[in-house]
Amino acid sequence: MTTSLERLRERLAEVNDLTKAATLLVWDQRVMMPTGGAEARAEALGTVSRLAQERFIDGEIGRLLDDLRGLEESSERDSFEASLIRVTRRNYEKATRVPPDLVGEMRRAAALGLAAWGPAKEQSDFAQLEPHLERLLELRHRYVSCFEPAAETYDVLLDDYEPQMKTAEVRGIFDELKEELRPLIAELSDAGDIDDSFLTGDFDPAIQRRVALEILRAFGYTDDAWRIDETAHPFMTTPGTADIRLTSNSRPHDLTSLFATMHEFGHGVYEWGVDRSLARTPLGTGVSLGVHESQSRTWENLVGRSRAF
Amino acid sequence: MTTSLERLRERLAEVNDLTKAATLLVWDQRVMMPTGGAEARAEALGTVSRLAQERFIDGEIGRLLDDLRGLEESSERDSFEASLIRVTRRNYEKATRVPPDLVGEMRRAAALGLAAWGPAKEQSDFAQLEPHLERLLELRHRYVSCFEPAAETYDVLLDDYEPQMKTAEVRGIFDELKEELRPLIAELSDAGDIDDSFLTGDFDPAIQRRVALEILRAFGYTDDAWRIDETAHPFMTTPGTADIRLTSNSRPHDLTSLFATMHEFGHGVYEWGVDRSLARTPLGTGVSLGVHESQSRTWENLVGRSRAF
Repeated sequence: MTTSLERLRERLAEVNDLTKAATLLVWDQRVMMPTGGAEARAEALGTVSRLAQERFIDGEIGRLLDDLRGLEESSERDSFEASLIRVTRRNYEKATRVPPDLVGEMRRAAALGLAAWGPAKEQSDFAQLEPHLERLLELRHRYVSCFEPAAETYDVLLDDYEPQMKTAEVRGIFDELKEELRPLIAELSDAGDIDDSFLTGDFDPAIQRRVALEILRAFGYTDDAWRIDETAHPFMTTPGTADIRLTSNSRPHDLTSLFATMHEFGHGVYEWGVDRSLARTPLGTGVSLGVHESQSRTWENLVGRSRAF
Repeated sequence: MTTSLERLRERLAEVNDLTKAATLLVWDQRVMMPTGGAEARAEALGTVSRLAQERFIDGEIGRLLDDLRGLEESSERDSFEASLIRVTRRNYEKATRVPPDLVGEMRRAAALGLAAWGPAKEQSDFAQLEPHLERLLELRHRYVSCFEPAAETYDVLLDDYEPQMKTAEVRGIFDELKEELRPLIAELSDAGDIDDSFLTGDFDPAIQRRVALEILRAFGYTDDAWRIDETAHPFMTTPGTADIRLTSNSRPHDLTSLFATMHEFGHGVYEWGVDRSLARTPLGTGVSLGVHESQSRTWENLVGRSRAF
């Protein structure tokens, strides 16, 4: 007989598969797709995302979570069982507030916006992007209004990226940082010009890409689980376990892209390091955007910009 | 108010979006995915395909088809309305016989088989592929058993590729062709050796790819709606309207790939030529595999191998 926990895992695996399909639809749009495919892609993304939401909130998962309350309470907080049930409950309570149609429309509109962004960026023409931004903002407001009013509107959105964090806390952190950073910046400004001329010049992008790949291989990149491509803006995404995708943007007159590549590697290796037994569950990914960014900056700055390196 | 026809189109659009997502999952596996991603990809493909089947056969489409019988009968056979209803009914009557779990499992097993095929081919080691072939064959038998017994087992499968065609008819066609081809082959054999040495030699694959692209551009390939990549075996697929993807396999010692590329272009241009108004419906693709192949061979043989060309 299937236990409630096994059944929950089946249901979550299904939702995860749909989410990963959506991840690939986005990666492909940004990296591979001919521009003509944008409209069909937006529709496909809207549908897959809407169905992922429908399947997540259709009631059975709620009932399973009720059944599993006893198991959660009798298990150690950090055990697989308690963590899976706790994280799923949190996600479920949020998701059930948001209509699947809205989720689908947000993804559809984002894909159309992405398609408009490419030529707008190339032509430095904000007017092409503006209506899309307006639409996305309007949809975000509809999303926020699905939740109880918070102390600050942004709290609702922040919670998706950094669970439990409040906008006021972020402001507090930045205020503290400002205190420390201001004198540091002043001190560095007073120290006179720093010679960073070696970072600019003529650098063949093809050679930059070869050097970047050599660095990545030294870090742990392998061909069987990673790939790297070029895009207008660098990013990392993972359409499945052991399938880590980085992108970079090599520029002919500076070495920025080397550091961006190390940064994206940091995101990638964080996902790569996730225990395989957590695959197809909501535990099989980074815990928050803040922790994710700490990993990317570790490799970009603490390693990549270290004197020893 | 939404009419039955509009509602049918909405439902078919959803199924089509899922099918196109599955198309991209396969394209990506064959062209871009690091090998480590195979297991997760097989699961994602299984889930997306199972859901496409579930959503297609869940009952509403059957009711809509009943509602629309009058419209179908009062419309011209080749009108959009009558064609859409007729083709959907045919697909629906077949699909409702096949459990979604079987559809998902066939796609999952095919993806795992594809992953095994790569290294098996490279190492010429059939044993690596054999268990996958056995599994796929077993699943195909389960699929065949969903339908009424036919005169020949293969009739059931043939009907998916070439609607209404029977295995006996195909055999008849080949028997007739044999009559004509045998004397032709004998005549050519008697004519002595033909000098086709210019087709073999040392041909830099990079230059072959440049030449192939030049030929494709002359045929009608444009960057905004097409792309071409390298794979172990050439194919064409289209993950969405105005998004036609070809692959080729350039070999360093012969020019086979040039003709393969023209062949795949033929498949691609057939899909590219589909009226945009048919997008996201079952009418928005080739009518059968036979007609598809006639298009690919037109460009490969009638154009590509013509004296004038």
